[in-house]
Amino acid sequence: MTDATPALRVGLVGSGFMGRCHANAFRAVGGLFDLPVRVELACLADIDESSAARNAAELGFERSTGDWRTLAAADDVDLVAITAPNSLHEPIALEAIKRGKAVYCEKPLATDSDGALRMQRAAADAGVQTVVGFNFLSNPLIALAKEILESGDIGVVTGFRGRHAEDYFASPDAPHTFRTEPEGGGALADLGSHVVSLARHLVGPISEVAGDLTTIVPERPESAGSANLKPVPVDDMAHALVRFENGAAGSFEANWSASGRTMDLSFEITGSTGSIRFTQERMNELLVCTERGRTSGYTKIEAGPEHPPYGRFCPAPGHQLGFNDLKVIEVSRLVESVATGTPTFPDFREACRIQQTIDTIRRSSDQRQWLAVESG
Amino acid sequence: MTDATPALRVGLVGSGFMGRCHANAFRAVGGLFDLPVRVELACLADIDESSAARNAAELGFERSTGDWRTLAAADDVDLVAITAPNSLHEPIALEAIKRGKAVYCEKPLATDSDGALRMQRAAADAGVQTVVGFNFLSNPLIALAKEILESGDIGVVTGFRGRHAEDYFASPDAPHTFRTEPEGGGALADLGSHVVSLARHLVGPISEVAGDLTTIVPERPESAGSANLKPVPVDDMAHALVRFENGAAGSFEANWSASGRTMDLSFEITGSTGSIRFTQERMNELLVCTERGRTSGYTKIEAGPEHPPYGRFCPAPGHQLGFNDLKVIEVSRLVESVATGTPTFPDFREACRIQQTIDTIRRSSDQRQWLAVESG
Amino acid sequence: MTDATPALRVGLVGSGFMGRCHANAFRAVGGLFDLPVRVELACLADIDESSAARNAAELGFERSTGDWRTLAAADDVDLVAITAPNSLHEPIALEAIKRGKAVYCEKPLATDSDGALRMQRAAADAGVQTVVGFNFLSNPLIALAKEILESGDIGVVTGFRGRHAEDYFASPDAPHTFRTEPEGGGALADLGSHVVSLARHLVGPISEVAGDLTTIVPERPESAGSANLKPVPVDDMAHALVRFENGAAGSFEANWSASGRTMDLSFEITGSTGSIRFTQERMNELLVCTERGRTSGYTKIEAGPEHPPYGRFCPAPGHQLGFNDLKVIEVSRLVESVATGTPTFPDFREACRIQQTIDTIRRSSDQRQWLAVESG
Amino acid sequence: MTDATPALRVGLVGSGFMGRCHANAFRAVGGLFDLPVRVELACLADIDESSAARNAAELGFERSTGDWRTLAAADDVDLVAITAPNSLHEPIALEAIKRGKAVYCEKPLATDSDGALRMQRAAADAGVQTVVGFNFLSNPLIALAKEILESGDIGVVTGFRGRHAEDYFASPDAPHTFRTEPEGGGALADLGSHVVSLARHLVGPISEVAGDLTTIVPERPESAGSANLKPVPVDDMAHALVRFENGAAGSFEANWSASGRTMDLSFEITGSTGSIRFTQERMNELLVCTERGRTSGYTKIEAGPEHPPYGRFCPAPGHQLGFNDLKVIEVSRLVESVATGTPTFPDFREACRIQQTIDTIRRSSDQRQWLAVESG
Repeated sequence: MTDATPALRVGLVGSGFMGRCHANAFRAVGGLFDLPVRVELACLADIDESSAARNAAELGFERSTGDWRTLAAADDVDLVAITAPNSLHEPIALEAIKRGKAVYCEKPLATDSDGALRMQRAAADAGVQTVVGFNFLSNPLIALAKEILESGDIGVVTGFRGRHAEDYFASPDAPHTFRTEPEGGGALADLGSHVVSLARHLVGPISEVAGDLTTIVPERPESAGSANLKPVPVDDMAHALVRFENGAAGSFEANWSASGRTMDLSFEITGSTGSIRFTQERMNELLVCTERGRTSGYTKIEAGPEHPPYGRFCPAPGHQLGFNDLKVIEVSRLVESVATGTPTFPDFREACRIQQTIDTIRRSSDQRQWLAVESG
Repeated sequence: MTDATPALRVGLVGSGFMGRCHANAFRAVGGLFDLPVRVELACLADIDESSAARNAAELGFERSTGDWRTLAAADDVDLVAITAPNSLHEPIALEAIKRGKAVYCEKPLATDSDGALRMQRAAADAGVQTVVGFNFLSNPLIALAKEILESGDIGVVTGFRGRHAEDYFASPDAPHTFRTEPEGGGALADLGSHVVSLARHLVGPISEVAGDLTTIVPERPESAGSANLKPVPVDDMAHALVRFENGAAGSFEANWSASGRTMDLSFEITGSTGSIRFTQERMNELLVCTERGRTSGYTKIEAGPEHPPYGRFCPAPGHQLGFNDLKVIEVSRLVESVATGTPTFPDFREACRIQQTIDTIRRSSDQRQWLAVESG
Repeated sequence: MTDATPALRVGLVGSGFMGRCHANAFRAVGGLFDLPVRVELACLADIDESSAARNAAELGFERSTGDWRTLAAADDVDLVAITAPNSLHEPIALEAIKRGKAVYCEKPLATDSDGALRMQRAAADAGVQTVVGFNFLSNPLIALAKEILESGDIGVVTGFRGRHAEDYFASPDAPHTFRTEPEGGGALADLGSHVVSLARHLVGPISEVAGDLTTIVPERPESAGSANLKPVPVDDMAHALVRFENGAAGSFEANWSASGRTMDLSFEITGSTGSIRFTQERMNELLVCTERGRTSGYTKIEAGPEHPPYGRFCPAPGHQLGFNDLKVIEVSRLVESVATGTPTFPDFREACRIQQTIDTIRRSSDQRQWLAVESG
Repeated sequence: MTDATPALRVGLVGSGFMGRCHANAFRAVGGLFDLPVRVELACLADIDESSAARNAAELGFERSTGDWRTLAAADDVDLVAITAPNSLHEPIALEAIKRGKAVYCEKPLATDSDGALRMQRAAADAGVQTVVGFNFLSNPLIALAKEILESGDIGVVTGFRGRHAEDYFASPDAPHTFRTEPEGGGALADLGSHVVSLARHLVGPISEVAGDLTTIVPERPESAGSANLKPVPVDDMAHALVRFENGAAGSFEANWSASGRTMDLSFEITGSTGSIRFTQERMNELLVCTERGRTSGYTKIEAGPEHPPYGRFCPAPGHQLGFNDLKVIEVSRLVESVATGTPTFPDFREACRIQQTIDTIRRSSDQRQWLAVESG
């Protein structure tokens, strides 16, 4: 890369957990990947001017603004990264798309399927590149799992068993946050969407679901330590039966009250002749069984340079990637996609399908019956 | 124990996998447990006189018969152990009960809930002791799990996630057996009943279910190597959403086409403050989390003499019990129960509830809707 | 088996942990294995007549004696099983051998190499069959490990890393037992001998050692709860560097003060192209790596009927053998060996080599230098 | 951080695996940690001007040089980071120290103990801050292990069992690299130094050792694919018995021919009342046992924000740090140390002790006897 390399100018909205994660990834990606463009941290938008200025300095952005509209409309921004509250995803994205900018949006894409559909259509009409932050898909071992599935090495997929369980809302003392807001909140939307994204990515579209959502803690403190309890309008735990278009069947669980679990985003894919297992708790290991017998069984594959782009981070196997590295990989695909005009995954279209699946599970639970997932 | 110790005379029907398992357990139990009676292997009934004679000699029974009716009616038999085909469970048990004998029956109790109910009532009316062979309940670590649950150490149970997955029918070449017979067969009945037994034992009665049964291999060879394919009238894989009477929710899976899995009879019980995990694949380990923080997490408890009756088998921890030891423990409880007239678990009443739950899951799948489980 | 099947009449000396283990194994073996003889529990010898009578009744022996000499000389005893204190192994075995009886002796064979050598020679001269109770060698997965090693699938062995760690003497309050007696005691002799037996069985003879023995707790109570402390004359923990005759190198550890460990009898065998790992903590699993790459790594092989004689215990894989089953397997080989006059392992000759290796490690530690192991 | 924040100007020598790792860490650290200074990537020195220029552009350095002397002497460099070949560590470091610059050096510090000692003394005399790249020490869970050890929660340490095993030289086709050079090379120096650093960090100084080094592959290709074989002058595998000054005993293994292993940098520390286990293969997990009993055993502690500075990378537990994050943590301590003039670990003095221990193990192997480690 030289100074003559064209620049990709990034505008980031938000500086919370995910905002920082984005900023770090954008800063790191150029040193790790051979990119056709130079990534510039052009502008940070935050809730007000002073926060924006302070965070921009800390995170290395050239300038800042207290108004996301300014950023979304700025001529010197090529790509808008959205880590703002869920309800702002749609307006920010639509504004950026209108200006012809690429959009990188955190999940969930919108607060409901209709919003997601509007966003998908706007992006398609404008022909801009989009990526949605289902970062766990960027694990090199998930790419390997997909490759093994496509190779036929485990035969025809018959079953999928997926789960995302953490414990951050297990305690009734855990206060309300944006995650417990009625629109777009709940364990199903927050965690279950990762399960759906993996299921679709690896097994394919889901045709029918039967959901069962539960609110375990009916009231939570308004804020940390508050004695003022407010009803929880969303689910703490969701289970679903699922049928895939290809005939496979299985189950999903999303649970943010799963005491003891910190990161059990896990699945077992059963094929007619083999099986693949994974948990994000041990994200550098993939368990694969392609036959069972006298000297066979599940093989533990450890992540290494044989699993691109692991080698971008470390030339030696077994050294372990971390969560933040997944975000860098996601950003590398995004940057490549924007620079070359080639689509990548998961884009707004895919995120829209995920959201429709999530919404159908929720409606199925309300109606206590199986529902078909629209293939919109 | 002396020669003056009263004898408990056992009559066994069947000499297949489970028949041998029973015989070995009855022969071993006296040397391992302090029992109030001496166990005598009085009589073996098998499919014909010559098989019966040969197997009786091999397994150490005093005499034999080719007719189970003779055994069930014999004056010198106190306890009838039934490992015959499922469709014979009811007639054998009813005959034995009529004669006032205790009955030890392999699962499933009957081929349907109605039969199970008749058997339960007959046993109750006659006041005889009964045990049904849900042998995994006899694991000392399952007793520990139950104790921990009752202690409140993981708080109120909110979720249960159970599964029994093996792979013996994964191959389409695996031929029909008694397990694929329409009545009482299928992965749900064969394997799922173990999940239900554990769920009820540890969490409590199940109130509502939504099931989804799948036949993965529609036709199988009539017998090993046969080119004659016959339709499979039962499920290879079953999933269910479940609600417990106490408010907990969860999911079940039963799967005998689970490529790669040999014995994943596993569960995770989530409580409001902790969690318990187990898989029969590592039956000497129980994972328990009662808090999560700086120096806490899941603790791996290894089976040892602190977990009775492990010490009956070995005075040192960590030496491992095996599957057959579970059967010896089950038999020890049975013998104690018969000798003292004290009920034990799981009796016909419990097995009947399990069967009703299984049947309701199957009907729910047929009807594609949630169904309440009768509390009969 | 019929009544015409010839009998093998067993005389057992001792009724402690191992005595009971023997009795149970002798009682169980006939129902599990097809043996050319009928095993009869002929006589039990114990410390006095009344203990012997009581334990014989409990364990199912036909008669009893308070004097082991009577048993070793009895005409109606074909096989003498020795679970008496270590110092009695030699006199009992020599007496039995003199009478032409087969001998089954618990480890350690003798209290020193000289005694072991005398026993080996007496057995060889008399041409009687012998087996020494290194029961962990009887695990079907250890047989599989040996087969894999012999197949060349992991190439030439370059390294061996073995350990037996438990925690029963971790507490300074644990009192003296026969295990802390000067002759034949200590962690090295008690636990390390299992490591040596596995190393020799799988990798081959050991040529040179450098040992380092430590007594962690210098004084222990004379007996449980006693305030009278007595010096500990043996090691609590032993490490050794080892060189094998075939050029491989490695290390041993024996440790009975290993807080946290109940049964870490484990090894890793490194070959030029692969590796095998095992721990008795999970005795139904063998980890084997025959190549490493994109889709390879360690494969977890679960014990099943493909690994004889697992199928004798259970026709289904993954159901788990237990510690006591290993003793039954050992006894099955012993009985077969005695009935057919065919040698089996590990015999007195092998046990003698193990003991010489142990003694050399101890002497090496005393002398603070490498020593060659005699190949006597 | 504002523009007024003082800058720390970094000069990096080398741009291989470790050079890139340094560059990425220096670029990332400011966005993740609150530092008292702004890190500037001032200058990169590489093997020639054009490589230096190209790599400087790619890694984000302001300027470049083909001569490390220029860099070490430059007025606009405050800190010299050395990732050059081992034989250059000493001259570069001495030059930088002479100019009063802080030095960050990859391990091994020097090619022998004498060089290490000269470097230590020069740094001490000049009063400059130093850090040596034993990056595994920077794992938040190693900090937790140290804290647990110091708390007394596992009692007095009695045993240490450490190993670093990888497989990159398992194949005889793996060609010579700088790692197989006579001075400073070999598995013991390359990998064993990590074991020694962990042992010293957690348990304390080592007093005596008995080593055993083996060259498994006597000749290797001169370069990849070359038919020209050259003798290997260093060890492929090293074992050692060790005694610590505090009385603990144990063993070390370093092995770069460990087929099947990618990153088994592991240890088990045994205390009088508990134990700690770790392997870098699962660097986000620490296994701790502080008691064993009915409901206790090893607890798996998952890395989370409770273990600083994990929270700098991710606010949620269980999300996993990666190898490169360890380097960022190391760099954060380094930058803090240089900015504030406060020493940190592991400095040149510590690295010198590590090297002396390594050298003593090597000499002990040559002399086939125990040797005391100088406490220089």
